[in-house]
Amino acid sequence: MGTASVTSHGTDPAMMFASDNAAGTSAGIVDAVVAVSAQAHLAYGNDTVTASAGQRVAELFGTDVDLHCVSTGSAANSLALAALTRPWGSILCHRSAHIEVDECGGPEFFSGGAKLVLLDGDDGKIDPDEMRRAVRHRVGDVHSAQPQVLSLTQATETGSVYSLDEIGTLTAIARDAGLRIHMDGARFANALVHLGVSPAEMTWRSGVDVLSFGITKNGGMTTDAIVSFDPTLHDELRFRVKRGGQLASKMRFESAQVLAYLADDLWLRNAGHANEMAQRLISRLRTTAGVTVQGAAQANLVFCALPERVIDGLTAQGYVFHHGIPAPGVARLVTSHATTADAVDGLLATIEDLTTTTATDNPQHS
Amino acid sequence: MGTASVTSHGTDPAMMFASDNAAGTSAGIVDAVVAVSAQAHLAYGNDTVTASAGQRVAELFGTDVDLHCVSTGSAANSLALAALTRPWGSILCHRSAHIEVDECGGPEFFSGGAKLVLLDGDDGKIDPDEMRRAVRHRVGDVHSAQPQVLSLTQATETGSVYSLDEIGTLTAIARDAGLRIHMDGARFANALVHLGVSPAEMTWRSGVDVLSFGITKNGGMTTDAIVSFDPTLHDELRFRVKRGGQLASKMRFESAQVLAYLADDLWLRNAGHANEMAQRLISRLRTTAGVTVQGAAQANLVFCALPERVIDGLTAQGYVFHHGIPAPGVARLVTSHATTADAVDGLLATIEDLTTTTATDNPQHS
Amino acid sequence: MGTASVTSHGTDPAMMFASDNAAGTSAGIVDAVVAVSAQAHLAYGNDTVTASAGQRVAELFGTDVDLHCVSTGSAANSLALAALTRPWGSILCHRSAHIEVDECGGPEFFSGGAKLVLLDGDDGKIDPDEMRRAVRHRVGDVHSAQPQVLSLTQATETGSVYSLDEIGTLTAIARDAGLRIHMDGARFANALVHLGVSPAEMTWRSGVDVLSFGITKNGGMTTDAIVSFDPTLHDELRFRVKRGGQLASKMRFESAQVLAYLADDLWLRNAGHANEMAQRLISRLRTTAGVTVQGAAQANLVFCALPERVIDGLTAQGYVFHHGIPAPGVARLVTSHATTADAVDGLLATIEDLTTTTATDNPQHS
Amino acid sequence: MGTASVTSHGTDPAMMFASDNAAGTSAGIVDAVVAVSAQAHLAYGNDTVTASAGQRVAELFGTDVDLHCVSTGSAANSLALAALTRPWGSILCHRSAHIEVDECGGPEFFSGGAKLVLLDGDDGKIDPDEMRRAVRHRVGDVHSAQPQVLSLTQATETGSVYSLDEIGTLTAIARDAGLRIHMDGARFANALVHLGVSPAEMTWRSGVDVLSFGITKNGGMTTDAIVSFDPTLHDELRFRVKRGGQLASKMRFESAQVLAYLADDLWLRNAGHANEMAQRLISRLRTTAGVTVQGAAQANLVFCALPERVIDGLTAQGYVFHHGIPAPGVARLVTSHATTADAVDGLLATIEDLTTTTATDNPQHS
Repeated sequence: MGTASVTSHGTDPAMMFASDNAAGTSAGIVDAVVAVSAQAHLAYGNDTVTASAGQRVAELFGTDVDLHCVSTGSAANSLALAALTRPWGSILCHRSAHIEVDECGGPEFFSGGAKLVLLDGDDGKIDPDEMRRAVRHRVGDVHSAQPQVLSLTQATETGSVYSLDEIGTLTAIARDAGLRIHMDGARFANALVHLGVSPAEMTWRSGVDVLSFGITKNGGMTTDAIVSFDPTLHDELRFRVKRGGQLASKMRFESAQVLAYLADDLWLRNAGHANEMAQRLISRLRTTAGVTVQGAAQANLVFCALPERVIDGLTAQGYVFHHGIPAPGVARLVTSHATTADAVDGLLATIEDLTTTTATDNPQHS
Repeated sequence: MGTASVTSHGTDPAMMFASDNAAGTSAGIVDAVVAVSAQAHLAYGNDTVTASAGQRVAELFGTDVDLHCVSTGSAANSLALAALTRPWGSILCHRSAHIEVDECGGPEFFSGGAKLVLLDGDDGKIDPDEMRRAVRHRVGDVHSAQPQVLSLTQATETGSVYSLDEIGTLTAIARDAGLRIHMDGARFANALVHLGVSPAEMTWRSGVDVLSFGITKNGGMTTDAIVSFDPTLHDELRFRVKRGGQLASKMRFESAQVLAYLADDLWLRNAGHANEMAQRLISRLRTTAGVTVQGAAQANLVFCALPERVIDGLTAQGYVFHHGIPAPGVARLVTSHATTADAVDGLLATIEDLTTTTATDNPQHS
Repeated sequence: MGTASVTSHGTDPAMMFASDNAAGTSAGIVDAVVAVSAQAHLAYGNDTVTASAGQRVAELFGTDVDLHCVSTGSAANSLALAALTRPWGSILCHRSAHIEVDECGGPEFFSGGAKLVLLDGDDGKIDPDEMRRAVRHRVGDVHSAQPQVLSLTQATETGSVYSLDEIGTLTAIARDAGLRIHMDGARFANALVHLGVSPAEMTWRSGVDVLSFGITKNGGMTTDAIVSFDPTLHDELRFRVKRGGQLASKMRFESAQVLAYLADDLWLRNAGHANEMAQRLISRLRTTAGVTVQGAAQANLVFCALPERVIDGLTAQGYVFHHGIPAPGVARLVTSHATTADAVDGLLATIEDLTTTTATDNPQHS
Repeated sequence: MGTASVTSHGTDPAMMFASDNAAGTSAGIVDAVVAVSAQAHLAYGNDTVTASAGQRVAELFGTDVDLHCVSTGSAANSLALAALTRPWGSILCHRSAHIEVDECGGPEFFSGGAKLVLLDGDDGKIDPDEMRRAVRHRVGDVHSAQPQVLSLTQATETGSVYSLDEIGTLTAIARDAGLRIHMDGARFANALVHLGVSPAEMTWRSGVDVLSFGITKNGGMTTDAIVSFDPTLHDELRFRVKRGGQLASKMRFESAQVLAYLADDLWLRNAGHANEMAQRLISRLRTTAGVTVQGAAQANLVFCALPERVIDGLTAQGYVFHHGIPAPGVARLVTSHATTADAVDGLLATIEDLTTTTATDNPQHS
């Protein structure tokens, strides 16, 4: 059994377009983990690596922050939202938000039963008018959950990116109504690179109180992080993280990943590459007969409608990707730091080949 | 900043006796993490490494199990207890149990408000008569929380180890009363090596339903695990783990650690070494004038009463350890897989030197 | 101060159309409360009145039931739903359901964070096709809350009533998918009288597991009730009711209300009268120029669009009612057991007078 | 069935010593309920009776208060504690406190998993030295629940009453450590009458933030109340009460009880009578051979050790009371507003008769 892990080779990276968290870990992050692996450190974050990580993140955002490394984005989102709302509060988010769609009620559990209120809007972005209505909904009425938090997903689930103006408009509406602001940054770096702005501009300077700082999807290994810009949440977050089962004893391994992720702009290079590969993919798909591209692919997600036989053909050839979401026949192709230009070109060539093939001589039927 | 993690060297391992989770990670586990780091795998545990880990753990325990890798022992305990009790249940544990003393109410949070009932007993072990009384306490009385779970800590917080007979006696009392059984195995391997029995004998064959399988303290990196022997909890655990923020997207990194931990008996060798170092320490401390050893040190924890100037002297020389728990003047010295015989001998020599030193020429006072 | 309560006369019942819970209590129920008020009884439901109430309700429904008197319909709904779902479950209900709109997250709180999934449908009734889609939604997918409960509101918030066929269709879809069924019967009697069926037919014979049995809105005083048809929930409900703060010490006062409510068909007479008054109101409003009746008023709720000056005029004359829900200019007029034919005729005459009045000579502007 | 409630006569009040909540309701309170029963009032506390009750209670306590009528003392305690603590907080109370012993985990449920920390002390009163230790316990340590609330039971479960000095000492320790203070006043009036002080002196002037104001046990019918002296809890309590299922729609019935309870000192007369009957009972029991009185009976609870055959004899003759708590052979005899002097004398005579009877001619054995 000693070689069991070695015998698990996984999927050929050139065939993997299922998700950015299906990719491996950047070498720099692996090296950093190895570098601290033989060291002895006080547990539970009372170590020098964690102290350095906190300083580095504060430096990065240009302000004091509380950094909490947690093992999943779900934990980052749920703990952040629990700290920003009261049990009788409502959390305003887009209908497609991960906190509503993909966390099995984690935010409701951690918050003690707060309610998610779903807002509409194009391109996976909350419509400001929806927001204006929502923040006024039955305020002070004891029979109704009270609007307390705006949760923005940046980049969105559809691969779009809020501009600073769009963020500012929504956070201003929220602030004026007394709401706090959370940003789900599972793909924070992809959005940041797309906008070409600073971490400060896209967060606290735009009104964000607490950020779920995504690392795993962008070349990380086992950690994401909560970054709080609100010092009044300092103690609350410490206790919620601990009793939420997220205070790692060997924290130095999470902290070392954070340091390496931010070192030498690795995180920006990873996200830049993933975005570029998405552009490479979408630009040629736009000109591929039989393929209908959906959305702008401002980050690293590409959605396109494909003929069923093309989806079947890709699968038959070993490509791994999700389809049928949001609609039947729509494929979601995700690029990552590990996606090569050759892999993208190979996928494109296969799609083009399949789209020009008639169903009858579709290889999977032979 | 790229070198920040490199500049954090931590504490000299030879001076570190604070906790086994202050030690580093075994080379075999680091290698396994590196081995899978470049691979592409489906996320959230739908990968071949995780499948192998599940098979390996089932093989190890000689029965079907559900394996859930989680990021902390706190999460393993809290999720396991939440699955074994209902909100109106009570969880019977020793007064010194980690779930009561060191998890900031995690079990209460995850269970929806279940109550921990504290039992006494020598050596950190639950007294069977206390247990007999507790399981009968107001059963069926709607005004009182209902006994539903027995939680055993193996090895205990005081470094003692329940024998198979002791476990069997307590679990039989629990079973007869309709309770489920949880084992907090943060130091499972240390106890197993001490008893020289099989994983099956110390768990499901002794009546354990769900095990918190400790890995971190025994040479692991970023994962502990829930091992459930009760197939009826299959779905409940899956959903609780996910909404509890513990379903890691890059699960292959946790699973690879589990595989390497169990490969070539690494886990047993690590625990055996830690226990041996504890014996080396305690056997000579027993003969050291001015030192009063407490307890048996059946695992890798050594408790001893030291003169204040000795505690101060050790600290002044850079030794890192906890003292004052459970009583003033009592030092807790913890050995690990990374503790060398030289480090133990060095500590012993220093203690002997300090105990024979008069307070006046105590170096720290000069 | 001894006369303070006497000096509070409230609103003239002839002017009160705000809600059926704004009405007083039936004399028979008041008499029953007075009758037991001097008696000595064991507390917490261990009394003969409560035993009689349980027998009477079982007799009424023609099957064994568990009866729990609780102080509000919110508690009945929240406790019933908590017993029927697990924290990771979802509760399917109509978008207009009271459990979603008017309980400030009570069901989420009592269930430990279950999610309400909102379904559409005309007349406040769940559309069967919506239901078929919803019960299949991501079943088994650990990332999504799992459909576990269907909650039907009978009569609905819009004053419509599900037919037995409509109930049967929805509960069959739910049953086939393994869901449990809750009925919010805040206006159970109004619906029952409208359908002219038996309590058994409208509940357990139609697939209902647990009923929120409304009493307060139909002439009660301080109690509503949970009626469970599922013996497997016996203990769970007992403990949830107690720890939920709903096990009244002087339970005999709630139980006496239940007995009097059901005695000599008082509950059916009350509901029949309220429905009749709603019909008296709506039938003439249908022929009133400037008034647009909405919906069927199958129970005791009448919705109609009124000119703003009419709404203002009614208010100016002291009429109490809600308007603006669901839409501006729509008045909700609720009749009760205490609404007299004269009161209805008086309201109608006033509306007719105001609709024929021009805005200029509208009394409230003079 | 219409006469079912009439056929339930309960226990002869002269034989009932089980609890003060086994007694009936004072005539004045019944009259007040009847007086408002035919009135029409806006629901959910938006009525003039409730407004008057709020004013009256503020007047009574000589300060602004928030009044929330709730259906049980369990709800009052659980909601008050939930508003005073955070989920990671601990609530310090006496080991015998009702919130620990008799609410099936209600406080843990409503607070989201806060921990009750049990303190010792004679006569059911918290020992100040225990309190001093407890408030300092691991403050700021993220691994431990944090002391946040002191909960005092006045009168205590053993029938003793804290003096103003004793209250002040404990609340000062709590205040200095930053804790909030809750008073469980299930028998508030009995304690107040015993001390002969004002409601203000025994609550906010002594440092109490929120009071569970007991009414049911002292002649009430269906309501107890939360009285908050902390305006910063205004909104939190409103929303917690609603989502906790405790905002009654026909609130006027609870509010009318509060007004009548306080009118013409009814509440003080009831409590004074109950205390007097307890004194009448205990003073003669002290001189009864074979009877050992326990405690001081400063309120309306009398504890005494009785020979088993006396307990059996009383039961055989139809007396209803609890025994075996806290110890076998100890009877708890509770007097109430409805306990007559004749009933007390009858009980005393029976006990004296039974104590002088030899076991052989004990009627129950014939």
